[in-house]
Amino acid sequence: MKRPGFVEAAEVERGVNVPQSYRLVRRDARAERTVVRLRSGATFGGDEIAICAGPCGVESREQLEQAARGVAESGANVLRGGAYKPRTSPYSFQGLGEEALKMLRSAGDQYGLGVVTEVLDPRDVEKVTQYADMLQIGTRNMQNFALLREVGEARMPVLLKRGLSATVQEWLLAAEYILLGGNDNVVLCERGVRSFDVATRNLLDIAVVPLLEEMTHLPVIVDPSHAMGIARLVPPIAIASLAAGAHGLLIEVHPDPPNALSDGAQSLDCAQFEQLMRRLAPVAEFVGRRLPKRQATAGTNRNARPSMQ
Amino acid sequence: MKRPGFVEAAEVERGVNVPQSYRLVRRDARAERTVVRLRSGATFGGDEIAICAGPCGVESREQLEQAARGVAESGANVLRGGAYKPRTSPYSFQGLGEEALKMLRSAGDQYGLGVVTEVLDPRDVEKVTQYADMLQIGTRNMQNFALLREVGEARMPVLLKRGLSATVQEWLLAAEYILLGGNDNVVLCERGVRSFDVATRNLLDIAVVPLLEEMTHLPVIVDPSHAMGIARLVPPIAIASLAAGAHGLLIEVHPDPPNALSDGAQSLDCAQFEQLMRRLAPVAEFVGRRLPKRQATAGTNRNARPSMQ
Amino acid sequence: MKRPGFVEAAEVERGVNVPQSYRLVRRDARAERTVVRLRSGATFGGDEIAICAGPCGVESREQLEQAARGVAESGANVLRGGAYKPRTSPYSFQGLGEEALKMLRSAGDQYGLGVVTEVLDPRDVEKVTQYADMLQIGTRNMQNFALLREVGEARMPVLLKRGLSATVQEWLLAAEYILLGGNDNVVLCERGVRSFDVATRNLLDIAVVPLLEEMTHLPVIVDPSHAMGIARLVPPIAIASLAAGAHGLLIEVHPDPPNALSDGAQSLDCAQFEQLMRRLAPVAEFVGRRLPKRQATAGTNRNARPSMQ
Amino acid sequence: MKRPGFVEAAEVERGVNVPQSYRLVRRDARAERTVVRLRSGATFGGDEIAICAGPCGVESREQLEQAARGVAESGANVLRGGAYKPRTSPYSFQGLGEEALKMLRSAGDQYGLGVVTEVLDPRDVEKVTQYADMLQIGTRNMQNFALLREVGEARMPVLLKRGLSATVQEWLLAAEYILLGGNDNVVLCERGVRSFDVATRNLLDIAVVPLLEEMTHLPVIVDPSHAMGIARLVPPIAIASLAAGAHGLLIEVHPDPPNALSDGAQSLDCAQFEQLMRRLAPVAEFVGRRLPKRQATAGTNRNARPSMQ
Repeated sequence: MKRPGFVEAAEVERGVNVPQSYRLVRRDARAERTVVRLRSGATFGGDEIAICAGPCGVESREQLEQAARGVAESGANVLRGGAYKPRTSPYSFQGLGEEALKMLRSAGDQYGLGVVTEVLDPRDVEKVTQYADMLQIGTRNMQNFALLREVGEARMPVLLKRGLSATVQEWLLAAEYILLGGNDNVVLCERGVRSFDVATRNLLDIAVVPLLEEMTHLPVIVDPSHAMGIARLVPPIAIASLAAGAHGLLIEVHPDPPNALSDGAQSLDCAQFEQLMRRLAPVAEFVGRRLPKRQATAGTNRNARPSMQ
Repeated sequence: MKRPGFVEAAEVERGVNVPQSYRLVRRDARAERTVVRLRSGATFGGDEIAICAGPCGVESREQLEQAARGVAESGANVLRGGAYKPRTSPYSFQGLGEEALKMLRSAGDQYGLGVVTEVLDPRDVEKVTQYADMLQIGTRNMQNFALLREVGEARMPVLLKRGLSATVQEWLLAAEYILLGGNDNVVLCERGVRSFDVATRNLLDIAVVPLLEEMTHLPVIVDPSHAMGIARLVPPIAIASLAAGAHGLLIEVHPDPPNALSDGAQSLDCAQFEQLMRRLAPVAEFVGRRLPKRQATAGTNRNARPSMQ
Repeated sequence: MKRPGFVEAAEVERGVNVPQSYRLVRRDARAERTVVRLRSGATFGGDEIAICAGPCGVESREQLEQAARGVAESGANVLRGGAYKPRTSPYSFQGLGEEALKMLRSAGDQYGLGVVTEVLDPRDVEKVTQYADMLQIGTRNMQNFALLREVGEARMPVLLKRGLSATVQEWLLAAEYILLGGNDNVVLCERGVRSFDVATRNLLDIAVVPLLEEMTHLPVIVDPSHAMGIARLVPPIAIASLAAGAHGLLIEVHPDPPNALSDGAQSLDCAQFEQLMRRLAPVAEFVGRRLPKRQATAGTNRNARPSMQ
Repeated sequence: MKRPGFVEAAEVERGVNVPQSYRLVRRDARAERTVVRLRSGATFGGDEIAICAGPCGVESREQLEQAARGVAESGANVLRGGAYKPRTSPYSFQGLGEEALKMLRSAGDQYGLGVVTEVLDPRDVEKVTQYADMLQIGTRNMQNFALLREVGEARMPVLLKRGLSATVQEWLLAAEYILLGGNDNVVLCERGVRSFDVATRNLLDIAVVPLLEEMTHLPVIVDPSHAMGIARLVPPIAIASLAAGAHGLLIEVHPDPPNALSDGAQSLDCAQFEQLMRRLAPVAEFVGRRLPKRQATAGTNRNARPSMQ
């Protein structure tokens, strides 16, 4: 891929005239809100809520298949899973690389799920694009401008997670880099910011859901798993996020959380995820949206879900 | 009032053995969750959601009456309003003092609302108790131990707001001071913590709602007005808070926000509040609770509200 | 004491027109910088650095005497020690109250030291004034406006610690409350702010030393003990603070830190304090100031200190 | 360059067993402290303080030469300057790229200065290595693991800036990635962390200077320019940093700050830098170190500096 040239434009310092820099992402830059559509058919920003679920890291074919089947049966429409894992310590599990990408593609195809996975290195963008339906830019890379430029040139939707202490302004300008590269299909993902309190892993900034609805035409989803760090807190916060207007959720689900190689403490198991999905249906309706249709293969009867009224 | 003696007990340093210090507030210290009941009949922690609404500061009899009528007609059951205002600048409006307390009592009685108002000075506790139904400890005073001890001796429910950068641990231990003084009727109020981002006034930590449900038997409510600082964001965050399990809301409502002497930017007007209340009813039902019954004097037909289904 | 009436003035919201609210504390409100002088002769803001040292809490007559003798011999000119201790947990050591005030007065007189001690409750201001030479407003009470008004009416210097997450603006406006009450003798004390990193107890904001030098005529000192929470880090940070221009230091010194009832981990013992003072002398000279003269009773030979050149 | 394989090792979660992950960076992993030496002869971590100075971005040959001459004459030994600029907004000046690298090399050679410059993209590491003497990993890339691995394979010293909200633990583990790649020559650079207070651009965490001295054998320097964001505050904080034990400084110097394309507000001009260097000499001596020898070409008489005693 060609690397974009350097923009030679007027200086915009932090906090000074930045709103004028939201040229492409600002709400009034488009007549309509952006609806991001994956090849699999899943959409972000429309009437259908996007439910992205799956394990933190792809650990084995078996683990991934169990997770994919579980989340598909419960009504998720996008499979998440890390092939390249950004880890604080170099001695932590780093992911299975391209092998994991192949497993993700295969599991996605089998269960009718779109595939979202993180790309860490601009040199991997082309390869990941061959397997995934959506490229995730992780928290630590929100201002990795080389990577933003590379995914800006890709012809594939991007999930842009908020940086650990990124202001809303910085986050929108990171998205601006991607749109400026020619890629309009960006979804913003709130996943909690760094806090002084260790009670939860991060501090979920739920206010950005309605705030970004005003500021940008791009869809916004919430990742309650990384925000909480504690599985028990994920369901109520997932519910609250949809109620606040989020266009989707990103939820860690593992077939066997106690033995997960990463993020076990914050992962739901498949039964907990099924239970959560039943709770979410009426919340989606309350905000005038709907959950994804369950896959036929799932064999569960959607009508069996108890009405929330 | 007699001032309590100094507890001479084992040293408990920050972060060390603190959980053992949650003797009275911890969840398992009681068989049942605490339901705090005001003299007016309003409850916090039971099946009925508590809706506290009213102006930031009491500015005049006319302003308060308009606000009280408006919030009562829309279904609030507690009137909030500041008589003593803690203000960053000594040149800001400081509140009308005892005059405001009288107006609050009168408006509360007229519209069948409980009255919650902040007390700033331990010397004022006795006086405020004569007029109010609930004593508010504000954010800046969460660790004002002289004040905590004084309200611990009062025979009146206390609304304890979270400090600006207080950990959940520090907050619970502040409540412990009050319970240790003999006053079990404490309601915790999340109102956002200090953040690096100026996009909203504070950063609402919605996770504390389910977290405190586990940690303590005390009820928890949310103040979306101070958290957001922007009126437009208050309704979606109020909805999200109830959906997450909050036992109540504290909302700033002013009959004429553009001319408010304080917090105008974050105050709803009466029509906006009415609209919000209509949205909240199905959310309360979703979590297995209900909004307060509207007062007969309000003259509005509760059944007129559109179903949320 | 009479309590001041409520100022009825133009509204000044947070972040709006606040600089205009710095009427009395701003640098250009005075021709000269303020020099705060205790009855004992110690000064803050002049050519002589103020060295306030002593235990976190007064635990016994013996402990206090040992600490007072130690710090006096090493060249401190103000004795610190808590009689009323603000503690996160109600089960922690709360201080010895008036008994401790008497011990502080006695030890101060014996060793020629000024006495600074914290006051927590507006009702205690008059009593503490009888024993102390300087009233400390602690971190948790920086915006305890009832207390600020009360010490504003006292005729005694005030040490105003920065709040846990207070902006410089909020801190200066807290000082404005005291000056507006008629008390011009305010010293600001930086003691670290709340941080996301637990590596140190708080995050020392050393930049406020030169920043406040520009913004206000009031003196600024630094408390490295509470900022660090680790005794080993106190000396280098004390040195850096004086080098940055601080007018004084507040340092916790305990004759037997491992057995202290509070803050043992961050307290220097007397020998460590002596060593630190020897290091500080040349730093004071570098910024054109000098350490306090050692008391004759100290019996140590100031000339014995190794030159720093 | 070959890309390193994925380390397959025991899981180390955040906050769990992390100290064991400091295998290579921890203080006791080496008998001696690391002294990092550039090809130009400048050292970090030894008796000589490293003074890195120059403009934020290389804007033109003339601007860079003026800056290089100025800082060399005043006694700096390393030239800093950005060729690839990470900018919050894509519409800000992005740097001159390879053209700037050539200018940096040329100016470095002419004035006997080492050259440190930031690399943003793993694909640029090889190219930057051809021109620079030291590779800077910027704040936004502290956890850009692809980049850390790439510089870990480079045979050139690395300046690793602390992330915007990185804990000390995360920072050391980022360094561990580089050492694990085979590159031992890492210098840590504190540049302030994100804060709730906008009074300064960032909040300098000066405590890390003595803290890291204990925790790691790697040298630590301070960047007061990015921490302060205000040129007037840079000199006192530079002084304080050396007094606290920093092994060097990174200071923005621009020949014409009001017309700088970036960071003008925080840049010293050459005269201000000269003045600062005169103040720093006695501070270096106080901590038992010395400033770099001034270059003969500089034509200034070092002895002309006023003694600080």
